[in-house]
Formats: sequence, C-alpha cells, structure tokens
Amino acid sequence: MAFDVPRGFRLSGLHCGIKSEAGKPDLALIVTDRPATAAGVYTQNCVIAAPVALDRERTPSDSIRAVVVNSGNANACTGERGMDDAREMARLAANVCGASPEQALVLSTGIIGEFLPMEKIADGIAAAGRQMGDDSQSLVAAARGMMTTDTVEKLAGRKVKLASGEVTLAGMAKGAAMIGPNMATMLGVVLTDAALSPRDAQAALSVAVRDSFNCISVDGHMSTNDTVLLLASGASSGAALAGDDLKAFTEALQEVCVELARAIPADGEGAEHLITIDVEGCADRDAAHTIAKTVADSPLVKTAIAGADPNWGRIVSAAGYSGVSFDPAGVDLIVNGTLLYEQGTPVEFDESSVSDSIGSNRDTSIVLRFREGHGRTRFWTTDLTAEYVRLNADYHT
Amino acid sequence: MAFDVPRGFRLSGLHCGIKSEAGKPDLALIVTDRPATAAGVYTQNCVIAAPVALDRERTPSDSIRAVVVNSGNANACTGERGMDDAREMARLAANVCGASPEQALVLSTGIIGEFLPMEKIADGIAAAGRQMGDDSQSLVAAARGMMTTDTVEKLAGRKVKLASGEVTLAGMAKGAAMIGPNMATMLGVVLTDAALSPRDAQAALSVAVRDSFNCISVDGHMSTNDTVLLLASGASSGAALAGDDLKAFTEALQEVCVELARAIPADGEGAEHLITIDVEGCADRDAAHTIAKTVADSPLVKTAIAGADPNWGRIVSAAGYSGVSFDPAGVDLIVNGTLLYEQGTPVEFDESSVSDSIGSNRDTSIVLRFREGHGRTRFWTTDLTAEYVRLNADYHT
Repeated sequence: MAFDVPRGFRLSGLHCGIKSEAGKPDLALIVTDRPATAAGVYTQNCVIAAPVALDRERTPSDSIRAVVVNSGNANACTGERGMDDAREMARLAANVCGASPEQALVLSTGIIGEFLPMEKIADGIAAAGRQMGDDSQSLVAAARGMMTTDTVEKLAGRKVKLASGEVTLAGMAKGAAMIGPNMATMLGVVLTDAALSPRDAQAALSVAVRDSFNCISVDGHMSTNDTVLLLASGASSGAALAGDDLKAFTEALQEVCVELARAIPADGEGAEHLITIDVEGCADRDAAHTIAKTVADSPLVKTAIAGADPNWGRIVSAAGYSGVSFDPAGVDLIVNGTLLYEQGTPVEFDESSVSDSIGSNRDTSIVLRFREGHGRTRFWTTDLTAEYVRLNADYHT
Repeated sequence: MAFDVPRGFRLSGLHCGIKSEAGKPDLALIVTDRPATAAGVYTQNCVIAAPVALDRERTPSDSIRAVVVNSGNANACTGERGMDDAREMARLAANVCGASPEQALVLSTGIIGEFLPMEKIADGIAAAGRQMGDDSQSLVAAARGMMTTDTVEKLAGRKVKLASGEVTLAGMAKGAAMIGPNMATMLGVVLTDAALSPRDAQAALSVAVRDSFNCISVDGHMSTNDTVLLLASGASSGAALAGDDLKAFTEALQEVCVELARAIPADGEGAEHLITIDVEGCADRDAAHTIAKTVADSPLVKTAIAGADPNWGRIVSAAGYSGVSFDPAGVDLIVNGTLLYEQGTPVEFDESSVSDSIGSNRDTSIVLRFREGHGRTRFWTTDLTAEYVRLNADYHT
C-alpha cells in the first residue's frame, strides 16, 4: 500500500555504515520547505538518550526544518560526548536545507553505550540530502532507515476533508515489539500538511499517543529512546486548524497512531499472536489502563496464549495484582468471543473450541469487564514464545 | 540435612488423591498439643482464594491447634462453595486433635477455579491424623505434602540460645518459582516452640516476610493464594519472649524465611540462574525495593543472564523505568564482582571473562549503586529460559 507524502516534506533513507550489514538502511532524513510546527512525546525512563534530551528541549516548536534518524546506535548512556554528537547530527541535518542548527530534531535507536560513528553519519547525511524526494518511495526509504530488527517498514496514512480543505497525514514507526536485542526502542514520526499551532499539535499528539503507542507492550521494558514526533508543514492552507477541523484532524492523527502502534507488536520477533486486550467498566480510564498493562505484561498470560490455552485463572489473577482494587464478584472475561468467567465465577465452556480458535488465529481478543464505572481502554501485546527467549538470550554485547 | 521439629508440634503428609499421579503427596497436617500463637502474611492480590480469606480472619491468634494444607487444587475463584469447603477442611483438621473448628487454618495451592474433592480430603485428613509424628521425617513428609511442581522439599531450621532458654525454629515452603503451570503460588509455614504474644508474632513475621518472601520473584505474577504462617507453640518456656530474646528470635526467624525464600527461585523450573540483586544508596528502602523488583522482572534482563550476556544497558534502563527518580550520573553497576558501569558511564571491562563467569555459575550477582541516600535491599530472581516458556505454554487447562 502506497501512501502520499503530505505537501511541504521531502524524505530519504539509505545505508551509511552504522550497521555492519552491507546495504542495510541505517539513516533517514526528513526536511521541510518552510519552518514546520513540531510536537514530541518521549520516554518516561529516568535514563534518557542524548537525542531525547535534545528533542525535549526543542519541542513544541513552530520552526523545525529537519529530522534526522539513525538506527544501529541509540546514542544512549554516552554522556557529554553523546550530547555533542546529537547536536552535531542536528547541525548537519539543518545544513542540508539551509536551516540553523537548532531547527533540527534527532532520533536514534540501536546499541546502548557506544559512541556514534560521526564521520559515517556526516557522509550519510550529506548523501541523504542529495536523494530527497516527495514521492511514496521516498517515504518507504525513510521508514526503512529507522528499522532495527523490524521485518517490515511500518507506515500508515489518512486523507481528511476539512472545512478548510483536505489534509494528508503520513506516519512511520519502528519497533520490533521492543524485543530487538539490546535495541528496545520505539520511534514514530507523523507528517502532515495541516497547519497547526505548536500548542494544538502538542495536545493532539499527546492524546493520540496516550491511546496508541502508550497502549502497546511486549516485555514492559521501557526504552531510553522512545520518541514520537508530529511535524505539521502547514502547506495545505494558511490558517491553523481550529474547532471541528482540529477535532477531525486529531481523530485522524489518532487513527494513524493506532495503526502504527498495533504494527509494532504485530511484528514482534518470536511473537505468534497479536493480543488485543479490552478492559471495560473500570472506575476510570487510568484504572483500566493499569489492569490492561498488567495482564499484557504477565508472562503466565503470554505463555498461555502462545500455548493456545484459554487459561482464565492467569488472566483474572493478573488483573487482581495490578494494584487496582475492584469487586472480584463483578468480573467477566471473554476470550475470542467466548464467555469464560462471569460475575467472578467460572462458566462452563468448550475448552477445545476456544483453544482451537486461539491456536488457528494470529489475533487473540481478551475482554475483561468490571462493574466499577465507565473507564475503558484498549491495549495490544504479543504472546511470549521460546523464540523470544532465543532471540534475546543468544544475542551478546 | 535433617531439622528438629520444635516441641509441641506433630506433623504428617500423604497422598489422598487430589493429584492424579499415584502416590504423589498432596496433603499435609500440622497439629499442636496446646493452643498456639499464630500469625499470617497473605497475598495482596485483589482476587483471593477461599483459604486466604479464612486465615486472614483467624490470624493473629493465640489459640490455633491445627493447620491443614492441600496441593493440587487452589480453591480459588470458587465462590461460596469454596468458602464452605475451606471451613469444612478446617473443621476436619481441628477434629483430629479435638479442637473447635475455628482453631484451624487452611492452605491450598494448585489449579484455580475447580472445586475441592471433599470426600478425598476428608479421608486424607483422617488418615493424616493417624500418622502424626514429631520427628524430622514427619517434617519432610509435611513439606512434601504442600509441593506442586517443586523438585525438592524446601526446609530450613535454626536453634537459638536465649536468656530464657533455647528455642527451635523449623520452616517449610513450596513454590517452584511461581512458574508451576497454573499453580503460581508460594506457601510457607514456620513452626517454633518459642512463646510469643500474637502481636509480637505478627510483627516479627511481617518484618521477616518483607525482606524474604516479598523479595523474590520469577515472573512477577502474584498468586491468589500466597500465604506465610508462623506458629509458636510456646512449649520451650512459659513467658512470652520480650526484649533481647524477642530480638534474637526475630533475627533467627528472618534467617529461616530468607533461606526458604531463596530456595524458591533456586528451584525454578526452567531456571538456569539464581540472580541476587543488591540495590544500594537509594533514598529509602522502598525505592531500592521498587528498582530491584523492576530489574528482576525485566524479561530483557532475565534473558541476558540466561544467555550469559553482561548486558548492562538492559539493567540500567530497567532501573530507569522503575518509576523511582534518581540521578543517572550517579549509577554504578557491578556484575559478578566486575564493575561494568560507573557514575553513569560505561567502563572498559573484559566482556568474555564476565560472560564466562555468568555462564559457568548458577548464581549471578547484580549490584546497582545509587547516590541518593542509604536505602538498600536484596532481591532474588531467576533467569528466563526457553524451558520456562515451554513449561508454561505447553500446559493446557
């Protein structure tokens, strides 16, 4: 599926030698014709990589001209030299489009604790600057430049008709389910030609990320580098979106983010199931989210799904230790459409039919219903397979 | 190693048919000659099993006469009928020693969501009552009666000379690293002939459990049935312990609990490493505990140790997402005695020698030092192997 590049952006992606595998893309560059609005959402890890520190200072902004992404090296735990390297990457990227150094943002993903090969990166950025394009192939090339152990590039797009005219969104993300050996990072960049104020861009992105990228997990290991950026070129119209147009844009942005976020656990190395967890009827959205994340991160739940085992005891007991209090007599559980547990009591069901349904489908649905209120959330995760362990145990620093 | 049974207790263990495997022990009975002091610490899961609800009401107490334990069935998520069954188990156990029904406590572990086979249990309790002994073989038999997927019985003992005379402690525990298929439960019972007031018994047990059974994890999946009991017969002397004697007893109790707790991850099915995590220099003990548990539960850390990989990036980044804030520039990391990371910066070290050290020893030591204060903790966990996944995925309800 090909996605249009929103007006006002040019992109490229290539191999510059950060990764040792010949030809494997490890750099992406995105530039804008004119200063763009930019918003960012970043990892909550106490230990943050240099590019995260840099971008956090520079967003929200109304004057970003370039984003440079490298894969193969996270530039994390690299101290002052890492900060200098991140600033230099920004300067080089800004230079490509004649912008000043502070008009660029930087994303890095890969090995932690090693210094960036700055000569290769400088050559790579210069080469990328000579290959910029505004077609869908350029979008794919940029998306590939940020991949680590992903098996496919992750893209999503939308066109939305607003009262003020049509706007286009195109997003790219990377993350092989946060399980890439030593590369547990999720990155996302969404481009749009909508005109947005920095404040509205930040608010829209924060909401969209909350219900998308913050609702996925594979192993619960939050990276030092997780970053999602929104860049709005404003090339579609003059005035910043407001009112219903802003609302419609925010909804489209959320759809794009959900599509990209889902693609991450769906591409989990070693994963055999994409598990969608719906938690409903909680006191509030946060309570639902906490329960969903606890169930999603339980190795006993994840191995049960890998084994096609409708083991409701593991799911209900994981909800029970989430730290959210609820009435155990008010809990229902539905797996792949079959009610297994109702009002806190096991229900007779056809175990082999539910097991077959889990075993023969890549998607698994878990619905947990409580009777505490109207808080709800949707969360995505993977199962836990022996292949996950093999991939992450056999890798050596 | 044989442990003496503290005076005032008699025990037995046998197979009564809850488990289908012929001869596999599934019942244990402990009785006291006279009313004993009893304290309990229980799971914090919001979904609790019937025996936990029963024991929570009955402890602390100064009049317990019997404890009955069954394995093979957790009596969890079994509603009112489960509560009736737990009460009936207590009545049958109390009956053995001529006590009243409310003088007995009940522990269950095994499958969630199935009703107990009460006829088999009634026959089993009666048979156990005819086999009570006060020798070390009886202690072993009782410890085996509570095992699920444990490969060995877990016992520990101490004799402590106090001003008021010598007291004996003997403890038993079960838990195959919380990874037993669908049987994620830890149980522990410590017997002593010391005389203790219910309040002192409860306080001593709470402290001992905090730094032992609450400092182990395998998969972070808290059970519906976790229970640790302390029974004090008072047969060693008349007056309840106080002052230095109480302090010395509490220390011995903690040693017994630590020994039993460590034995649980050490016996983890599929586990190839027992990992000891020391976290030091935190603002307080809770902060150290939160960081230690987060590192212990990170699948990326656990697979790294399984793969003998001194992957400091995974350990430091796990500490970073624990929710505890700290100065990243103040972190040191030592693995098996080798400094890998100092004051927030990677250190040059011999990777193959550290990898060999992890690969060739069953015990792995991780020390994380912060510069925030004097809070510290010690935590034990296992690595994560493909065998863990196999055991927990291949099991079907």
